[in-house]
Amino acid sequence: MLRTHHCGELRLTNTGETVTLTGWVQRVRDKGSLIWIDLRDRYGITQLFLEEGKTSQEVIAAARSLGREFVIKAIGDVTERVSKNDKIPTGDIEVRVTQLEILNASRVPPFTIEDQTDGGDDLRMKYRYLDLRRNPVRQNLQLRHKMARETRNYLDGLNFIEVETPVLIKSTPEGARDFVVPSRMNPGEFYALPQSPQTFKQLLMVSGFDRYYQIVKCFRDEDLRADRQPEFTQIDCEMAFITQEDILTTFEGLVRHIFKTVKGIEIGSVPRMTYADAMKFYGSDKPDTRFDMKFTELNSTVQGKGFSVFDSAQLVVGINAKGCASYTRKQIDELTEFIKKPQIGGKGLVWIRYESDGSLKSSIDKFYNQEELKKISEQFSASPGDLMLIMAGEEEKTRKALGELRLLVGNMAGLRDKDTFAPLWVLDFPLLEWNEETGRYQAMHHPFTSPKPEDIPLLESNPGKVRANAYDMVLNGTEIGGGSIRIHDRPTQQLMFKMLGFTDEEAKKQFGFLMEAFEYGAPPHGGIAFGFDRLCSLFGGADSIRDFIAFPKNNAGRDTMIDSPSTIAEEQLKELHIKLRAQQG
Amino acid sequence: MLRTHHCGELRLTNTGETVTLTGWVQRVRDKGSLIWIDLRDRYGITQLFLEEGKTSQEVIAAARSLGREFVIKAIGDVTERVSKNDKIPTGDIEVRVTQLEILNASRVPPFTIEDQTDGGDDLRMKYRYLDLRRNPVRQNLQLRHKMARETRNYLDGLNFIEVETPVLIKSTPEGARDFVVPSRMNPGEFYALPQSPQTFKQLLMVSGFDRYYQIVKCFRDEDLRADRQPEFTQIDCEMAFITQEDILTTFEGLVRHIFKTVKGIEIGSVPRMTYADAMKFYGSDKPDTRFDMKFTELNSTVQGKGFSVFDSAQLVVGINAKGCASYTRKQIDELTEFIKKPQIGGKGLVWIRYESDGSLKSSIDKFYNQEELKKISEQFSASPGDLMLIMAGEEEKTRKALGELRLLVGNMAGLRDKDTFAPLWVLDFPLLEWNEETGRYQAMHHPFTSPKPEDIPLLESNPGKVRANAYDMVLNGTEIGGGSIRIHDRPTQQLMFKMLGFTDEEAKKQFGFLMEAFEYGAPPHGGIAFGFDRLCSLFGGADSIRDFIAFPKNNAGRDTMIDSPSTIAEEQLKELHIKLRAQQG
Repeated sequence: MLRTHHCGELRLTNTGETVTLTGWVQRVRDKGSLIWIDLRDRYGITQLFLEEGKTSQEVIAAARSLGREFVIKAIGDVTERVSKNDKIPTGDIEVRVTQLEILNASRVPPFTIEDQTDGGDDLRMKYRYLDLRRNPVRQNLQLRHKMARETRNYLDGLNFIEVETPVLIKSTPEGARDFVVPSRMNPGEFYALPQSPQTFKQLLMVSGFDRYYQIVKCFRDEDLRADRQPEFTQIDCEMAFITQEDILTTFEGLVRHIFKTVKGIEIGSVPRMTYADAMKFYGSDKPDTRFDMKFTELNSTVQGKGFSVFDSAQLVVGINAKGCASYTRKQIDELTEFIKKPQIGGKGLVWIRYESDGSLKSSIDKFYNQEELKKISEQFSASPGDLMLIMAGEEEKTRKALGELRLLVGNMAGLRDKDTFAPLWVLDFPLLEWNEETGRYQAMHHPFTSPKPEDIPLLESNPGKVRANAYDMVLNGTEIGGGSIRIHDRPTQQLMFKMLGFTDEEAKKQFGFLMEAFEYGAPPHGGIAFGFDRLCSLFGGADSIRDFIAFPKNNAGRDTMIDSPSTIAEEQLKELHIKLRAQQG
Repeated sequence: MLRTHHCGELRLTNTGETVTLTGWVQRVRDKGSLIWIDLRDRYGITQLFLEEGKTSQEVIAAARSLGREFVIKAIGDVTERVSKNDKIPTGDIEVRVTQLEILNASRVPPFTIEDQTDGGDDLRMKYRYLDLRRNPVRQNLQLRHKMARETRNYLDGLNFIEVETPVLIKSTPEGARDFVVPSRMNPGEFYALPQSPQTFKQLLMVSGFDRYYQIVKCFRDEDLRADRQPEFTQIDCEMAFITQEDILTTFEGLVRHIFKTVKGIEIGSVPRMTYADAMKFYGSDKPDTRFDMKFTELNSTVQGKGFSVFDSAQLVVGINAKGCASYTRKQIDELTEFIKKPQIGGKGLVWIRYESDGSLKSSIDKFYNQEELKKISEQFSASPGDLMLIMAGEEEKTRKALGELRLLVGNMAGLRDKDTFAPLWVLDFPLLEWNEETGRYQAMHHPFTSPKPEDIPLLESNPGKVRANAYDMVLNGTEIGGGSIRIHDRPTQQLMFKMLGFTDEEAKKQFGFLMEAFEYGAPPHGGIAFGFDRLCSLFGGADSIRDFIAFPKNNAGRDTMIDSPSTIAEEQLKELHIKLRAQQG
């Protein structure tokens, strides 16, 4: 090693030792006869010290030639500092430099390498290798490493085995778009990159590998909304000879283990909620349960009093924003504007304020007297100081809009602390959902999810009501994982494909191998996959996954650092048996 | 769990317990009133027992309906066996079945699920999920899992951090062919799949992540010679602020750790040999050092005696096959035929046999008398019972051919035991090699490898003689890993690209980002990558990597199980802005 110690290592106990350090120049303070250099590496910062008269002129001159981000090697003696810095672990000492070597110079970086940088997103992406020098970004990747490690520790301990599944697989038109790879050796044919290792992990169950996992890259060629990446990482797991209960227990154990070992937090057992209740009480299949503020349904209380908005509504439903009676008119107007946004789709917002004197004020005073308002507040279990917010309209839309409002109010009330963690299982998802565009049902999870046995008769009569053996794990209002107990016999799988509008031929062409495998002794099995990038960002207390990925792509799917994607040579296209399509003017 | 125990778990101490097992029916022996079922899962085999009169008729009937590979759940009582089977860990007990449930039936498998199967390669690949049920294949994947785990344990312990680098990167025409991925969002442009994360790991060093590793999929679109796969796995590593010595020490430590923890073998310190010596003494840059049989050069001894084959040869060189004097004429003829094969390219083989009576017989008795033969044998340090084998011709070709002969003789003499492990560092590889086809030099390792500082002056005058800071780890005659100390400054990297025939523009277009990164404080760094599939196969004592990969592709790059690659829809091609090229009739 070019160094004897790293820059986060030296303490008072090292005083008197001669050490060699290497790293990057964070800054140089030149006070004339005294020079200090902050030397930085992955592990920390150590202060170097030079003194006119005591340090050789040559070394002083070298120090004066340094710029930010120069890479140097310094030899010197560890001494106690006169003025200590208790903000850094090495703050008690400094190194009196006797030799200084510039290992590499640096141009002035395009943005400051500090915790708070002056670089904008585009610049940081183009010079990602410099951005990665900043503590917050580096710490994110260290967190990610630790989380991957603890995931493996936990699963290895339970006899899971990590099996690598192929990256060059087969394109299937189901679900999101595949990235495809033209085959040179098989003209006119293409591989696809996996959206998940789903069929392979099921085949591993058929093979008897009864506990599989893999931390694995997956790919989706989707239009990149904010915070989606074309390549992303899953913790992908599958088990055989299990019930849904085993999966829930095993994988809440995983999340508990990661919380404990990585963050030192005991999350206890993970509460469970049906999909139906999640929609009913939170208007969302991924409720943020860091705060309560459940929905209260008001139809029977409020209808028939002459207020046509309520009377004509399929559903009247509200939340009680505890302690928010002090919201100003302006704040309430903002809430109203929010719910009226097209993507929220609310029509209007009714409020009832529970004053500290026990009186009730509302935006519907014209239609409801104090007694009636009192009755409504009782339904909300409201007390003086609370603010009730009520929406009305078509059931499903109203629930969803109120769910969004609930989150916003939660934010405003400071109830969504990034350091509070509320995991939740959401169970019993519907098997199918109606797709307006295609005019047919599609799998809510994927076509391999099994229906609840007691709901199978509904498959013909009322497919939308069939519940699946499917579950999501939700953390602070974000889905972090989802899975299901799978179909493991050919007839059910065939029926499922039929429900989804596959012809027998299509089903056979795309998934024949899996259905055939089910005929050779497939055990009951199920699994789950966690979105690892998202999990890391939640653990890191950040909204964006981008800074938990070493080299992310931008919203156009480009890596601006390496300038990819890029054109390739005509010769290469020829070998791959493809040509470019002329672009429309 | 559907079971209380797995099939490798029960012992005499469990006698009397009521247990539930699940698994696959390995075989049923029906002796009329007594029925035994071997139940198999990933963990082992347990014998189930049913007895007419004692077991219920219903259960007996169910047992009689079972076929091979049926999946069942059996409840019963653990009892001591009358005739024990000491070949399996559960051989002391059997389970007297009280309840039997068929979880899934199975068609008759297309080959037997036994350690030695009757299935051919093609059938095994098509039904890989059944092949994976066989012990040897499953054990290979378990070995692989364990090796990956121990690799991580070792590297994590040394403060390495695993960082995921992108899979969708940029195509570079250097080296092997890239697989490419058309970009839908960037018409006419393509991503490439990485042949290795080389540039990204170097950028991570520039970022200050001074110890990086990743167990990572890489991709090469090559014509698949036997035992190459289009996607393969590397243990990819890089360190900063190090010398070559640090890399060698760290990574022979890795291999030592895996040997110790996975196989219980202490390999000690890894010997080192220069590339020059490896070629000189073994005719190979990856010598199998499980056995000695070094080359002996004979020019000065044998030339000028009138034997024109030797006299006209640039090099006369041989090996001493110790104790092989008993080889028959037929065996020696076979050796001669072997070296004359076009891919070996030898012209002929001269032999000298050291008889037990001390006399010397040879195929060149006409030209060399006993005294001269004696002198030659002395050079070989031969003794009675030895067989000397000599080749002559153009230097480089002759060494390579003799190297192949040495391996064959080693095989015949039983010197290449799969359970003996001889790791070796080969050092000081040439930086460049001449490519006859392109008529220019190409990088022997890759364009980022640094030349030895003392050889830099040769870059202009005699490029072929420049040695690189490059090293391979060889195990039993197979390269398992290779790496180098990298260039970390722009001028040297530019010079290197120039040597390789890049124009400035080409270099900038493809690797501009890396050269720019070198200008912002790049530390000295270097690394290594191990071929993980190959390493696993060597640890498993197998010649082929295929059975250490869960779902491999065949020599045409096809996965015959899922039938991939395959055609994709015209609509999909359109979205990707490409079309198929018409095939030549």
